[in-house]
Amino acid sequence: MAYIFEVPQPSNELLEKAHRIRLASQKISQAENKIRIQALNLMADYLDKKSNEILEANHEDYLRAERKSISKALLSRLKLSKEKLNAGIEGVRKVGNLPDPVHQIQIKKELSNGLILERKTVPIGVLGVIFESRPDALMQISSLAIRSGNGVMLKGGSEAGFTNTAIFSALQEGLEEAGIDKNVICLLTNRKDSMAMLNLEKYLNLIIPRGSNELVKFIQENTKIPVLGHADGICHLFIDNDVNIEMALLVALDSKIQYPAACNAIETLLVHKDIAESFLKRAIPLFNSNNVKLIGDKKSVELGVEFEASVEDWQTEYLDLVLSIKIVEDIDEAISHIQKFSSKHTDGIITENITTANKFMHEVDSAGVFHNCSTRFADGFRYGFGAEVGISTQTLPPRGPVGLEGLVTYKYFLKGEGNIVDDFSSGRAVFTHKDL
Amino acid sequence: MAYIFEVPQPSNELLEKAHRIRLASQKISQAENKIRIQALNLMADYLDKKSNEILEANHEDYLRAERKSISKALLSRLKLSKEKLNAGIEGVRKVGNLPDPVHQIQIKKELSNGLILERKTVPIGVLGVIFESRPDALMQISSLAIRSGNGVMLKGGSEAGFTNTAIFSALQEGLEEAGIDKNVICLLTNRKDSMAMLNLEKYLNLIIPRGSNELVKFIQENTKIPVLGHADGICHLFIDNDVNIEMALLVALDSKIQYPAACNAIETLLVHKDIAESFLKRAIPLFNSNNVKLIGDKKSVELGVEFEASVEDWQTEYLDLVLSIKIVEDIDEAISHIQKFSSKHTDGIITENITTANKFMHEVDSAGVFHNCSTRFADGFRYGFGAEVGISTQTLPPRGPVGLEGLVTYKYFLKGEGNIVDDFSSGRAVFTHKDL
Repeated sequence: MAYIFEVPQPSNELLEKAHRIRLASQKISQAENKIRIQALNLMADYLDKKSNEILEANHEDYLRAERKSISKALLSRLKLSKEKLNAGIEGVRKVGNLPDPVHQIQIKKELSNGLILERKTVPIGVLGVIFESRPDALMQISSLAIRSGNGVMLKGGSEAGFTNTAIFSALQEGLEEAGIDKNVICLLTNRKDSMAMLNLEKYLNLIIPRGSNELVKFIQENTKIPVLGHADGICHLFIDNDVNIEMALLVALDSKIQYPAACNAIETLLVHKDIAESFLKRAIPLFNSNNVKLIGDKKSVELGVEFEASVEDWQTEYLDLVLSIKIVEDIDEAISHIQKFSSKHTDGIITENITTANKFMHEVDSAGVFHNCSTRFADGFRYGFGAEVGISTQTLPPRGPVGLEGLVTYKYFLKGEGNIVDDFSSGRAVFTHKDL
Repeated sequence: MAYIFEVPQPSNELLEKAHRIRLASQKISQAENKIRIQALNLMADYLDKKSNEILEANHEDYLRAERKSISKALLSRLKLSKEKLNAGIEGVRKVGNLPDPVHQIQIKKELSNGLILERKTVPIGVLGVIFESRPDALMQISSLAIRSGNGVMLKGGSEAGFTNTAIFSALQEGLEEAGIDKNVICLLTNRKDSMAMLNLEKYLNLIIPRGSNELVKFIQENTKIPVLGHADGICHLFIDNDVNIEMALLVALDSKIQYPAACNAIETLLVHKDIAESFLKRAIPLFNSNNVKLIGDKKSVELGVEFEASVEDWQTEYLDLVLSIKIVEDIDEAISHIQKFSSKHTDGIITENITTANKFMHEVDSAGVFHNCSTRFADGFRYGFGAEVGISTQTLPPRGPVGLEGLVTYKYFLKGEGNIVDDFSSGRAVFTHKDL
């Protein structure tokens, strides 16, 4: 799917929707923690109550998709079983157990007598989320938005149209019963609107794309709204010469095959020349027996790797059982290869040498730098965040796997008793800057 | 000055410079705190040693500028007295007293047995700073960059060319004596390079413009590099009806006249209709006697404001002794006016009513929301940050006045003992997620 069209201007109807979300988001931004938690529980209750309707709607989507003969992978993501739905509903309730991300005091200090500064977390405002066919995403994203006091404009895959509409209406009923303006969530149902969303910079504060690399790249290049996400995930693992070969084999295999379609799976293995022969002698049959196609540089082909790599290979995210291998002179060559080709997601080293590990971890400029463990750990849930809003590969925060904290920002609240700056410049008052 | 030309592609020479900064920044990013502090002291020592040369260079710049008959304001900013230089040198040393922003542990936890996650602050990498004629900015920015372990590419105003070159060479000598690669700072001397900088997204991680609104806007619209800064500063002060009029007058006057060219000075005063008559009766002569030109809506003109406002006035940053005044029905009208016209910098309320104050502070979506104090307090030094890198009016962090913390990001460091994800999905291992 290529995105070669222009981003359309928002229709009046879309602007009206955006305006309503904005108003509703201002209200929910002030809702107490317990109100937001109650809303999540009522959303879950209504999903429970309406579960038959939701499953029937999903069945209809499934039949329609089958007739269009879409791919098996897509069909399986679209299919919502009773178990998957229940797990999704349970997930909505669980979001209520996470620590409240809003109204947290980050800084509190007296600037001067009677002049108190607080920096507190506040919701971002309105999120725009574009996700793919997986209909459980709708429940998950809406619950994260409500938990963090934000409004959210959602656009799901058209294949899941009936399912999304059924889920969405249950969520809105739950919100209403909780006394929250139901317009705080909004489901867009046509593709033109979902693209016009990119021009809503006056209404949306953050866009979270959950889709293909191509979609993410298109969005990043066509909106002025900040985007939380990443296009490529080209991760590396460097096998140092001072290494426990058993560990290196285990971690390399896990980093590639545990879930090859994930962004945190490795695409390239860099091997120190001094260990290359003994490592590859064991690694090649191991990868072969796990159906991994190996593509290597000249030297590794000489040591038994079947296919020779082109320059393209070092910059390709295979997302599949394919691995490129390069033999390097030393850690410096490994690091400079990574600096050149890494997408700054996650890069790891296997070594017994702490000095080498530290050098690698400090010089590699990626969101995650790993030592003696699988790159597959780069994930919000595995990091213990309780949720994952997205993974960011930009340098500035938020970086790496982003939990609920990615859905809040902060504001400075300054309270005085008539304090003026002229008193300070003329010496009648002084700053105390005392932490409270 | 209008920016109507295309952003030029970087020359090979500029790319070479960018490459050298990038390498040097990788080295300084690992420098210990004491090394960075020592570098600051040596930079200050060399500025001291070379102060005569610097002052002479400044004299030459000044004479040249005078011949070009540039504005008095610009001339006064360009002029570097012995006192101003000494204060600047002292400032360089003082940056060493700020808490180290780098290598701070933000998160440390055990994910599972033997698998330890740390999130630590790290320098951003390479900064690009474009600043105006004020030559002391060069000392300040370089010292903030070195303190936070970053490289920096600098472009100063051409009027200060001799001064900047003299200061820069002293700074580099100090760095060299501290054993730091002097290429970690780089001074561009022609305008073409400073614009081509905007296309260095592969080398620069953050651009900090210090100049006119027009320059900032141009930069924001013409680079893929994140920009820390703000174009407009349209700040409001709302005078509620439940108010101490003496306090309201004092704070309103300070917010306007204490330094009208600052971004945190107010441009618009919103006045509750129930207090308008009694407030304006005192405010109009007070502002008049301080040479503030008042421009108001119809109602306030009826109450004695001299000039009538056009729509343009509500969106103009006067940066001068001019103030627009609007009489509003109630706090809701005040808030909706602010939501429409504020540049999200700083907006304040004067009221004796805590409920009204809280409503205002929660609903107004600006970086700073102030109660009963002057908007002029919105400043990194007054907030006690010890430095101000810039003020950001974007919604996402960093927001508001940004101290040294704006020059660092973070990275996730994960250290294991051969841990793999497959052990967790198969139940052979469990996550502990214990804070350490």
